[in-house]
Amino acid sequence: MTDLQEVDLKSRAAYVSWTSATIRYSDLDPNGHVNNGAINAFFEDGRVQFRGERMVSLGEDILAGFVLVNFSVEYLKALHYPGLVDIGTVVTRVGRSSYVLGQAIFQDELCFSTSETITVCLNEETQKSQPISDDLRLILEGAAAK
Amino acid sequence: MTDLQEVDLKSRAAYVSWTSATIRYSDLDPNGHVNNGAINAFFEDGRVQFRGERMVSLGEDILAGFVLVNFSVEYLKALHYPGLVDIGTVVTRVGRSSYVLGQAIFQDELCFSTSETITVCLNEETQKSQPISDDLRLILEGAAAK
Amino acid sequence: MTDLQEVDLKSRAAYVSWTSATIRYSDLDPNGHVNNGAINAFFEDGRVQFRGERMVSLGEDILAGFVLVNFSVEYLKALHYPGLVDIGTVVTRVGRSSYVLGQAIFQDELCFSTSETITVCLNEETQKSQPISDDLRLILEGAAAK
Amino acid sequence: MTDLQEVDLKSRAAYVSWTSATIRYSDLDPNGHVNNGAINAFFEDGRVQFRGERMVSLGEDILAGFVLVNFSVEYLKALHYPGLVDIGTVVTRVGRSSYVLGQAIFQDELCFSTSETITVCLNEETQKSQPISDDLRLILEGAAAK
Repeated sequence: MTDLQEVDLKSRAAYVSWTSATIRYSDLDPNGHVNNGAINAFFEDGRVQFRGERMVSLGEDILAGFVLVNFSVEYLKALHYPGLVDIGTVVTRVGRSSYVLGQAIFQDELCFSTSETITVCLNEETQKSQPISDDLRLILEGAAAK
Repeated sequence: MTDLQEVDLKSRAAYVSWTSATIRYSDLDPNGHVNNGAINAFFEDGRVQFRGERMVSLGEDILAGFVLVNFSVEYLKALHYPGLVDIGTVVTRVGRSSYVLGQAIFQDELCFSTSETITVCLNEETQKSQPISDDLRLILEGAAAK
Repeated sequence: MTDLQEVDLKSRAAYVSWTSATIRYSDLDPNGHVNNGAINAFFEDGRVQFRGERMVSLGEDILAGFVLVNFSVEYLKALHYPGLVDIGTVVTRVGRSSYVLGQAIFQDELCFSTSETITVCLNEETQKSQPISDDLRLILEGAAAK
Repeated sequence: MTDLQEVDLKSRAAYVSWTSATIRYSDLDPNGHVNNGAINAFFEDGRVQFRGERMVSLGEDILAGFVLVNFSVEYLKALHYPGLVDIGTVVTRVGRSSYVLGQAIFQDELCFSTSETITVCLNEETQKSQPISDDLRLILEGAAAK
């Protein structure tokens, strides 16, 4: 386990990787708020962007065997249509065979939602967890908050 | 071009293949109606069911080269949550290199929406349309209204 | 019926109202293409943008009674993730009690999909079609291609 | 805080309220698995069902002021198309001004995902948390595992 910097997930300063997404009319629920499904999809876009930016340098194969096992999200404020959101992503923990990404959704400095996602590295034959490679560990530690 | 039976798309009697789907809370729009995106997804489920039931007997490969090029839908009545819908599918036309599926969404005898979808067979190298095989033509004609 | 300029829906020059939207990872289907549901949602965003820009000047109430009854779409090319699309909207026909919007989805000059949508004005009590008001007719004719 | 029965969220025996939902083709991701967004929507359907069954007896107004603030989910196994899932819901904690629902998604006895959701009761004027009414507390405690 690597000790990483504690981060305030509600602050833009915490994040090392960013992407943006537009809200869709079809995201609205009967209350006229953006539904949680759309918010969760924004987080997914942030993770895909993070992988493309940081991890794919090790080869597309590096993603094989990694499985998202846990997603935890706090909904802080209602989002409205139309609009653009910024999604920040950062590594908050690197374990022996798993890592944790912290994320948040912003409009300017306002934070609407934060989340944490645990991804585990599985041996594809045994389907048991296996250690993260040293190469990937270096990359993940390099994507922690400074 | 094969002359097929004219069908009344709003009548359950028109259809040869059926599937069912549940409405989700996340399908609701700000008016509390099921949004058009969900209705279109129901039609897609009907088409996938139809392919699995009728066409896959020719081998999974038969689907390679078929591209949905046109979708036209009539929205007749608002659908509400919660509920189950039945989706009917029938072949309404078989051309040289394309075929048309007619579909509708029902609750009991009530028709909420009808659609037609044109699928074209493309040569994968040239990306130009090519004739439908005789095997598939027989299957498609057999899935027209009786 | 007002005679409007014929338009080539595949050309950016046809459109009077524009919006943009981001593709989401969750839009991808098992082939790695953006699914039709996402494309249809982009068209919806274009229509909502059009209404807000052009029609809401007549009061929010103007939208009461208008019902989208028909949507017809051509899928021309597969869209990929990630990316941004531009959605153009234009009035292509104004009838006594209905109007038609033409739309298309672009990346630069490349057109991925075109659609037409028929919206009807209903009397809220009788649920029968009723004439479009003169005020709205002027607005709609002003939003046709030049 | 009321002490409730500890429950094993992966066991059907834990749940007091049930609903079912169909998987859609549009739920599939590029790996051919049901995407997390669909799984999260199934949980939402379970919660809406629970509210309708158990809470609406206190009047529709009872829901005003309740806000879902935290959602935490474990993804255990990949789900495939087509299929039907059963969604179980149970109260796992009742606090002064919040309650927790435990949920899981099953096919037969196989559990694909579990989740917990925290809902808080807010005073609509001050937007601060306020105590759950005694009527609701009784209902929630009655919906805990036996």
